[in-house]
Amino acid sequence: MYVFEDLGGRKVALRPEFTASVARLVTTKMTTYPKPIRLFSAGSLYRYDEPQFGRYREFWQANYELIGSSRPEADVEILSISSDILKSVNLEKFYFKVNHIGVLRSILSEEGIEEKEQNTVMQLLDKRMWEEALRKVEEYGASSRCTDTLRALFKMESADWHTMIRRVKRCVKEYVEALDAVENLCEILELTASNETEHLVLDPGFARGLEYYTGMIFEIYVPEMNVALGGGGRYDKLLELFGGESTPACGFALGVDRTALAIKMQHPEWRPPGLAEKNLSVLVIPVNDQVRGEALRISSLLREEEIITEVEVMGRSLSRALSDASRRGISHVVIVGPKELENGLVVLRNMKSKDQKTVKIKDLVNEVKGEL
Amino acid sequence: MYVFEDLGGRKVALRPEFTASVARLVTTKMTTYPKPIRLFSAGSLYRYDEPQFGRYREFWQANYELIGSSRPEADVEILSISSDILKSVNLEKFYFKVNHIGVLRSILSEEGIEEKEQNTVMQLLDKRMWEEALRKVEEYGASSRCTDTLRALFKMESADWHTMIRRVKRCVKEYVEALDAVENLCEILELTASNETEHLVLDPGFARGLEYYTGMIFEIYVPEMNVALGGGGRYDKLLELFGGESTPACGFALGVDRTALAIKMQHPEWRPPGLAEKNLSVLVIPVNDQVRGEALRISSLLREEEIITEVEVMGRSLSRALSDASRRGISHVVIVGPKELENGLVVLRNMKSKDQKTVKIKDLVNEVKGEL
Repeated sequence: MYVFEDLGGRKVALRPEFTASVARLVTTKMTTYPKPIRLFSAGSLYRYDEPQFGRYREFWQANYELIGSSRPEADVEILSISSDILKSVNLEKFYFKVNHIGVLRSILSEEGIEEKEQNTVMQLLDKRMWEEALRKVEEYGASSRCTDTLRALFKMESADWHTMIRRVKRCVKEYVEALDAVENLCEILELTASNETEHLVLDPGFARGLEYYTGMIFEIYVPEMNVALGGGGRYDKLLELFGGESTPACGFALGVDRTALAIKMQHPEWRPPGLAEKNLSVLVIPVNDQVRGEALRISSLLREEEIITEVEVMGRSLSRALSDASRRGISHVVIVGPKELENGLVVLRNMKSKDQKTVKIKDLVNEVKGEL
Repeated sequence: MYVFEDLGGRKVALRPEFTASVARLVTTKMTTYPKPIRLFSAGSLYRYDEPQFGRYREFWQANYELIGSSRPEADVEILSISSDILKSVNLEKFYFKVNHIGVLRSILSEEGIEEKEQNTVMQLLDKRMWEEALRKVEEYGASSRCTDTLRALFKMESADWHTMIRRVKRCVKEYVEALDAVENLCEILELTASNETEHLVLDPGFARGLEYYTGMIFEIYVPEMNVALGGGGRYDKLLELFGGESTPACGFALGVDRTALAIKMQHPEWRPPGLAEKNLSVLVIPVNDQVRGEALRISSLLREEEIITEVEVMGRSLSRALSDASRRGISHVVIVGPKELENGLVVLRNMKSKDQKTVKIKDLVNEVKGEL
């Protein structure tokens, strides 16, 4: 966390995530709202870590939460909205790494390992430090049955999620509550699989660092990057922690910067949808100072139609402005001259074909769009 | 500014604005880019002030700059993009308060008042503390001609900008450079007026607090609020300050939170464009647990078409789910039952008219859109 003391001597942290703030909001200002509550937030967050690829001190997140339902379909809604968002920006081959934190926690609880110690173990698992985690578990006094079970979970070979569920069940069969957790995860994955075709990867050694997760957890990856695009899960005890009633909840946070990186990697030529996508851009050139006002007005007309439009603002001659437009890959130029203007006309030039035609100003938008 | 010492003992400020960062970027990483350069930025900014209406410690800005042109059409481009943006979110009756900082600064310069002292005066003017500003000017040794001129400017009655330009010209006629500044402002306003129909209010006592402005300055207001939605102007010396070549530039920053407040005030019923605007919202209800997966899949189909869609995730009975949907103003319900499903059908119910019909799942999106 990015913490400091402010000018008034108060201890302050820059917002590290949205979920805790949303939970506080729900337990203070929204106590009379009927459940379920669905909330969305987006903005900058901060961490103090050393910056590295996809890991900035200031980063953007889009975050959503579904509060009030303990049922698996709520978990599935969060999973499928996450999937829908990534599809909507044309990401391909992304996959969900999933687990149920209840499996690991139930095993540790049954061994008498307290929550605080469990959290330490989860943080090590989040960093994929399995051996260190096992050492901690031993140190906390777990039985060898426990460490054997955990080691088997961590070392489990990857397979389709149906197979994995069976293997995990077999592995944890002596821990009753862990089995319940596997059942819950199985129900979620079945419902998800009927809804989505994404690759679901069940990783029984996967944990998330945040302490508030209680159920299904997941992270989303693309093959091109080894950092998660986002993650989430079920956190049924967080609202209570903020003084609210016991309230089931789940949610997801998408890393916006990382998603942008992934889009760049998978689609280097990607441009925002709409006319920009078509590589259409217009430069409006007034041939002298007397027609500058009209050139500016025309550029506004084009922009209103979401056509990327610049107006020549350097006072260059027509020929210099044209060669600059050509060098910069502008697709079309509108030449505004006093004679044409008298008749409500301008010249529209295609910079690639060098074709040009005289068009009525009132038809200009359609003429430009017709060039697509 | 929101300043503090970080854990490493470094003095840090949370980003207070974008323009200085953009200027630094241009003078370091973009030195070989041909001019003009047009840049856009958006995100959170921070101030340490006491929060109040429309004035938050964390606030959002959208910011754009046009770097490299000293010509009035560049100022006009910034003014008209600002206007286009506010029109695009349906704001009405907004107006531009404009002035040219060169008028005030030229008068003070000619009186031998140094830039640092001028900045103090500008800050007082930004806070509309005209008398205090005049007192400072006297203190700095200005002639009585100077204070008389300034007082006349500050007290000038409001009129259309053509009239104001004439009055200001007459008022500052003995200060040659101030007259040049008025001429420049006049050219900008003439070009703007031929392009835009917004109300342009020339206020000769208007200054902005930031020290880097050198030319035309402006702020945008709506009648409902006494804080500016945004502001900008010309800053020809800022890039030099960051070690770059002398480079003319102008730009604008729009307060996103304030713009949202203004939209709320002028259009309390406003909803985002698209289907949300039409008040269409759908709740998908599975009648039993066996059809939950299909209900989730159907909700995804609807969401893909940007239809606001929820799925019933509380496991409520059909009748309770329906009455909850009705209470919450949901416009349409899709009922997913096992018998209909066998034939690829669901029931679509209009919650207002209570009409319901059985429709094919593959036609559902069109059926829902047809309900508009």
